[in-house]
Amino acid sequence: MSRLLRQVHAPYVIRSLNFAQLQELAGEIRQEIINTVAKNGGHLSPSLGVVELTLALHYVFNSPVDKIIWDVGHQSYTHKLLTGRYNEFDTLRQIGGISGFPRPTESAHDVFGTGHSSTSISAALGMAVARDLKGDNYSVIAVIGDGAMTGGMAYEALNHAGHMQKDLIVVLNDNEMSIAQNVGAMSGYLNRLRTDPMYSKGKEEIEQILRKLPAGPKLLRLIDKLKDSLKYLVVPGMIFEELGFFYLGPIDGHDIKAVTNVLQRARTIKGPVLVHILTKKGKGYKPAENNPDKFHGVGPFDVASGEIKKSISIPSYTEVFGRTMVKLAGRERNVLAITAAMPGGTGLTKFARLFPERFFDVGIAEQHGVTLAAGLAAGGYHPVVAIYSTFLQRAFDQILHDICLQNLPVTFAIDRAGIVGEDGPTHHGLFDFSYLGTIPNMIIMAPGNENELQHMIATAVNHHGPAAVRYPRGAGIGCKMDKELKLLPIGKAQVLREGADLTLLAVGSMVSRAENAAGILSGMGIEATVINARFIKPLDEEIILKYAAITGKVFTIEEHVLKNGFGSAVLELLSAKGKKDVLVHRFGIPDCFIEHGSHALLMEKYGLNVEHIVDVVAGKCVPRKVPNKLKVVLD
Amino acid sequence: MSRLLRQVHAPYVIRSLNFAQLQELAGEIRQEIINTVAKNGGHLSPSLGVVELTLALHYVFNSPVDKIIWDVGHQSYTHKLLTGRYNEFDTLRQIGGISGFPRPTESAHDVFGTGHSSTSISAALGMAVARDLKGDNYSVIAVIGDGAMTGGMAYEALNHAGHMQKDLIVVLNDNEMSIAQNVGAMSGYLNRLRTDPMYSKGKEEIEQILRKLPAGPKLLRLIDKLKDSLKYLVVPGMIFEELGFFYLGPIDGHDIKAVTNVLQRARTIKGPVLVHILTKKGKGYKPAENNPDKFHGVGPFDVASGEIKKSISIPSYTEVFGRTMVKLAGRERNVLAITAAMPGGTGLTKFARLFPERFFDVGIAEQHGVTLAAGLAAGGYHPVVAIYSTFLQRAFDQILHDICLQNLPVTFAIDRAGIVGEDGPTHHGLFDFSYLGTIPNMIIMAPGNENELQHMIATAVNHHGPAAVRYPRGAGIGCKMDKELKLLPIGKAQVLREGADLTLLAVGSMVSRAENAAGILSGMGIEATVINARFIKPLDEEIILKYAAITGKVFTIEEHVLKNGFGSAVLELLSAKGKKDVLVHRFGIPDCFIEHGSHALLMEKYGLNVEHIVDVVAGKCVPRKVPNKLKVVLD
Repeated sequence: MSRLLRQVHAPYVIRSLNFAQLQELAGEIRQEIINTVAKNGGHLSPSLGVVELTLALHYVFNSPVDKIIWDVGHQSYTHKLLTGRYNEFDTLRQIGGISGFPRPTESAHDVFGTGHSSTSISAALGMAVARDLKGDNYSVIAVIGDGAMTGGMAYEALNHAGHMQKDLIVVLNDNEMSIAQNVGAMSGYLNRLRTDPMYSKGKEEIEQILRKLPAGPKLLRLIDKLKDSLKYLVVPGMIFEELGFFYLGPIDGHDIKAVTNVLQRARTIKGPVLVHILTKKGKGYKPAENNPDKFHGVGPFDVASGEIKKSISIPSYTEVFGRTMVKLAGRERNVLAITAAMPGGTGLTKFARLFPERFFDVGIAEQHGVTLAAGLAAGGYHPVVAIYSTFLQRAFDQILHDICLQNLPVTFAIDRAGIVGEDGPTHHGLFDFSYLGTIPNMIIMAPGNENELQHMIATAVNHHGPAAVRYPRGAGIGCKMDKELKLLPIGKAQVLREGADLTLLAVGSMVSRAENAAGILSGMGIEATVINARFIKPLDEEIILKYAAITGKVFTIEEHVLKNGFGSAVLELLSAKGKKDVLVHRFGIPDCFIEHGSHALLMEKYGLNVEHIVDVVAGKCVPRKVPNKLKVVLD
Repeated sequence: MSRLLRQVHAPYVIRSLNFAQLQELAGEIRQEIINTVAKNGGHLSPSLGVVELTLALHYVFNSPVDKIIWDVGHQSYTHKLLTGRYNEFDTLRQIGGISGFPRPTESAHDVFGTGHSSTSISAALGMAVARDLKGDNYSVIAVIGDGAMTGGMAYEALNHAGHMQKDLIVVLNDNEMSIAQNVGAMSGYLNRLRTDPMYSKGKEEIEQILRKLPAGPKLLRLIDKLKDSLKYLVVPGMIFEELGFFYLGPIDGHDIKAVTNVLQRARTIKGPVLVHILTKKGKGYKPAENNPDKFHGVGPFDVASGEIKKSISIPSYTEVFGRTMVKLAGRERNVLAITAAMPGGTGLTKFARLFPERFFDVGIAEQHGVTLAAGLAAGGYHPVVAIYSTFLQRAFDQILHDICLQNLPVTFAIDRAGIVGEDGPTHHGLFDFSYLGTIPNMIIMAPGNENELQHMIATAVNHHGPAAVRYPRGAGIGCKMDKELKLLPIGKAQVLREGADLTLLAVGSMVSRAENAAGILSGMGIEATVINARFIKPLDEEIILKYAAITGKVFTIEEHVLKNGFGSAVLELLSAKGKKDVLVHRFGIPDCFIEHGSHALLMEKYGLNVEHIVDVVAGKCVPRKVPNKLKVVLD
């Protein structure tokens, strides 16, 4: 097992292997990745697809002198195994262990941190410019999937790189997918490159045919006339050529020798080069090959059967959202759904099957997705834009400028809000209260449980303006689900428990923890009011001011950064109302980026576990001598 | 004067005119636009370039049933004149008057509000989908400049529209410019379309040549083989064809008849069509034709001479930034500058001339620009990214994910922060403290005057991490400029005046107003401490807590929304330190979008004028009977 891999303490080692040995190494790497991801969870399909490509890259180029930038970065496991991290690989994605994404602080071979899509060409161009300004001499390579190519900033970067003509290699890792099936006209174009023999004929071959023709004077004159235009005829990858790139490909990405050869050639070409590599997501592990979407990002699974281990049967927020959308669409004809390459991840698979005309997968193109929603809303529909909290950051300006400024009826269903766990700092959804809250006209809700989620989606869809519902990754709390959808009053909180000593003002995922904390505090003789805020914007001013006045102590609790978070909105309210005499303590995430690790461990580390909440609250509230079980009289 | 224009109370009127009359009308429109912009300021060159195109659009299409969406929208003056707004046109860009951009609340003909670039194709696709879902039947037209085509979301939308194959017309208004000279490989491509005869040959003509050839069996076999690939040879606009669009053009955009004809044809074609129109920015007004950049967005000017009226000789913040950059670049080799299509607007023209290898205009591509900076910083340089506050919103995710998460040394020079005046809600820079402040590792400064600006830029460039300096549009306060650049201590505020009654804690543009207010208050017997915060993040905790304790009353003053603004950061600080007993009153912009109008009028309307500040402060501070001129003893 891993006979060769064990010897690869640095990438240069593989240059002493022959192609048969490289192939053997590829097999060992696959086994290592499958076994580790089966245990820790992770991005399996993307990493299995690029084993040979990564070997070829490290065979041809001299990392870290040559700079390899992994777009999105979830395919970098082979790269990690080859760059001195084999011994720690079993700590993948665990707290204190190695990250599932490239991290410059982790290794000199991770020259640029990634996680979000479509950034690699911009970063690579920056490095290539820096190299030339310094007079250095090394290669810069961006490895980008065809899915990431649907992101606008990849095009912005191609456009600029083609203009600047710096030496730069873009490896287009074409697996015909983003996370799910790819969309977009560019995808169709790449498909034609793959399958149309004329697209993929070599320049030389076509020229040979032309030379064999009866070269009458008219034909000669025509060929002369065609001049540059001829290249369209004979050069595949014309779009890339037209954008100033030299195109090489397409090449079978699982043939190490072929990939090595094309990279060798790319290395010697001046100016920007695009190398088109064809790979298969999940390659080498049948369950992943057959179901690359399911195994894209996956929890622990059984290697032999490919069964994914489901620890709990409580429905996830994602599932509840998906079911709610189906219910709503069935009775309200104006409800549409938009996803940015995440039909499965956002829970919209069933909606897409039942209402195909009302479902839009825009690809990895959050900006377009949001403004498409604006157009649909201007045309009389109510689109629900389902994008993860961290990826919606990409569309901040479009939410502000295209949706909220025009006060258009669009719902944002924001999954993976809060700490997402093992994916780490590039994926935590800890900023949405802030970036959405600062925008006028926006309504923001967070459900305290999965039952409330369904009502909030219904409420948002019923609201004639922009509204966002943000909810966490993973399972709900296992509460009873109402059969009928209810409309919640906008801006009204819910009082869950009354107590005179203090107020726990919790939002979203923290509501059930606040209830638990209140129970423990009660046993200690401290009686807490517990409020489920429901709305981050607008706040329920009446309820908050009332209980702030009664208890004099407000503890806000949120799974979000404290800076510009829910607690800050409460401070703004109290200040605006001149309430100086209320003690406010805010629980939340400090002003720093949060590492990867399990949700439970990170919540504990940052003081959002029930025990810590109880400790802090108890420290600020002197318990009554005799536990007070009397009902508080409220005004 | 305006004999015809006066009769156009609705766009359908022009359909009764013949082409000679349309041409006459075009002349009247130009005159009206030139005279109005000469008086009110506005976007002259873009609007003059599309007079004939706009006439042709309203001639062929039936607005507002057919939907015309103006990308960016600063070229919509002719559209406004033709759609019932001739009589109010002299109120252009004035408070209460008509907007310089399309606004759905202003007219049914403004079907989608614009202001930022590259949104029109997404919105148009949304409307086309909505139309088909409803079973309606009308045309949807997006008019987009070649400059806006460098924005990634335009590509995202093209890619999706080409995939969906909805009936949709994209008019590419190609004037070979964004605001300044265009950049990017796509621009080179469009240039080839314009100038290479083979690119612009009609399909039919080429086919004719082929048919005349001696059709030997080999040639026939070749032609057969070429099949689809042949279209590259004979179809100009291949990139657009490859992305699923039918391409028509290029057409002389000042020939009303030709444009009308091509639009008539586009109207009948199924699926997405791209109509390539060639226009000249500033057309019909020589000074603007000769200097379209200068007359892109312009203040009042003299029509006869083209002299722009400069009311003041105080250098603008923009000029001071530009000079500082030249100074810094001269002595620090690692300083680079990046602009997104705004070399003039950001003050970088001289820098670009003196240091061409260190200057990067990425086009209208803020996302790429920021991540390019990340790559340059990772490569050992310190890029200064100069983008207006409102446009930097586009790159929120890149600032967070590519710069701040990696803590890379990049400076953001954020011009046009605060209320920008006549450009209105799409352009006010009122959200930057919030969207930048929520990001860990980010330092934010705002200078109280233009002298401080130069020191802040030097300080940011000297800092090994991300830092932002935000400053207002227009002239500085006319203060003395230090010869030598100074480094300011990070996170330290400046006490400008000491008084025991209250603290005016001002930031940026509000510092000088706070000083004025303090002077007036002193005359009323109320002595104010005035603090220039300098840093929004990190706050000077020591100074703020000290004067909060001494005076017990803190008035924060900022030209920014109150929600998640500077004042809120002060509330967060006081709460975190358990300072319950301080009265905090926050001056700033309320939670709504701010209309267009002069800076002075809007500042007054929203209570940021000195008089209102004095009134509010005096109302909360009981003046001493005898004006107290004694020096306060401070601890």
